[in-house]
Amino acid sequence: MFRETHSRSVIKAISWRVLGTIATSALVFIFTRRWALSLAVGAFEFVSKIGLFWVHERVWDRLHFGREEIKPLVLWFTGLSGSGKSTISRWVADRLRAQGYRVEQLDGDTVRHIFPNTGFTRPERHEHLKRVGYLAGKLEKNGVFVVASFVSPYEESRQTVRAMCENFVEIFVDTPLEICEQRDVKGLYGKARRGEIRNFTGIDDPYERPTSPELVLTTTGQSVEEAGSKVLELVSRRTRQGIMN
Amino acid sequence: MFRETHSRSVIKAISWRVLGTIATSALVFIFTRRWALSLAVGAFEFVSKIGLFWVHERVWDRLHFGREEIKPLVLWFTGLSGSGKSTISRWVADRLRAQGYRVEQLDGDTVRHIFPNTGFTRPERHEHLKRVGYLAGKLEKNGVFVVASFVSPYEESRQTVRAMCENFVEIFVDTPLEICEQRDVKGLYGKARRGEIRNFTGIDDPYERPTSPELVLTTTGQSVEEAGSKVLELVSRRTRQGIMN
Repeated sequence: MFRETHSRSVIKAISWRVLGTIATSALVFIFTRRWALSLAVGAFEFVSKIGLFWVHERVWDRLHFGREEIKPLVLWFTGLSGSGKSTISRWVADRLRAQGYRVEQLDGDTVRHIFPNTGFTRPERHEHLKRVGYLAGKLEKNGVFVVASFVSPYEESRQTVRAMCENFVEIFVDTPLEICEQRDVKGLYGKARRGEIRNFTGIDDPYERPTSPELVLTTTGQSVEEAGSKVLELVSRRTRQGIMN
Repeated sequence: MFRETHSRSVIKAISWRVLGTIATSALVFIFTRRWALSLAVGAFEFVSKIGLFWVHERVWDRLHFGREEIKPLVLWFTGLSGSGKSTISRWVADRLRAQGYRVEQLDGDTVRHIFPNTGFTRPERHEHLKRVGYLAGKLEKNGVFVVASFVSPYEESRQTVRAMCENFVEIFVDTPLEICEQRDVKGLYGKARRGEIRNFTGIDDPYERPTSPELVLTTTGQSVEEAGSKVLELVSRRTRQGIMN
């Protein structure tokens, strides 16, 4: 929350008054060529208008017209491990921050690193995502854009999270399994194929493709900037609609 | 995030100008008793000062002086079941909202209602509070005051949560067990005594008294308003210190 100190308001009023009165006196002098008159008008104006300016500021402070609050969004990136979710979402979060929004980035790997006991069975994944959804909803409600990237493989979990948010935008990063497996940045597909890790999405646990996502991104033949720009376009469309008057 | 529309700025500038110019013309007329002169000065002033006012606003918009951001706090109420945590914290949260702050209230019962699988063993409680602490830290980081009321019986858990927040304020609601048990608003002490529920704090699970809380509240012989006011005093002291310049 930003708040202006009293000294700022007072000094601002005075600085405007000095500037305004010099202009008024100059005008009177130009019209009349009388120094005494222009100085007298200026002196009276100086005193009377400081109060008038203050009253005007207070009245406008109470008027709601033209003051808008941007309603934030929850941008939920879903897709296979290695699909490019984190990379695109990081790019998007940085751009939104540069636009002056409050942005919180939630990433599956980061959150699981802090809560290492979170498992990978269906109920554990669901409970985990529900907790993340709760967090996302609270942040959104308090004016924060949430950029979340989670494999979130089950339609049911994504629907649960959607219901916990007000402005939920599901972004499906639709990179084919073969390509994710080729990339295998974290070496997880190899481990899953060798049976060293279990319940790995795409290998021995299903990825339920989103049925009606707000946006589908492909990452083959499209750069991070190109994919991310599509998200930003959607944000700009949705925030224009979502203005609270 | 609040943003002023261009139309608001323009209409505000014009409304000030109309007001200001009427005052100037009136002043010139009072000094000279010449209608034509006062109207001419007014007309020139009207045109020239709209631009001047705008420039003045833009310059001040770039000046950081006197513009302060309030750093929020995490107000963490700890104490036995039935100690009065929720009641006092609700009162405090309402007051803070009325002061214009963004406030999120997190209550043990509410959160457990949404996540019914959260258990009551020591590791489960600890993991639960760690998740709440993560949420609180994220909210605080994004400018939101957090008012949390959780039994949070273990010193270790409270220290973990403290470390996850920037401005953590531990408020110990120190109501004796006998009194909590007499009140027994939710009928839980009865159930715990009859062995119908396990790991109940104060009965068959320990409450580790805070060793260095920021505030200790008693609820016997003190009203909710009296206890809550002490919290508000602390908030006002801490936010004055915590201003980011």
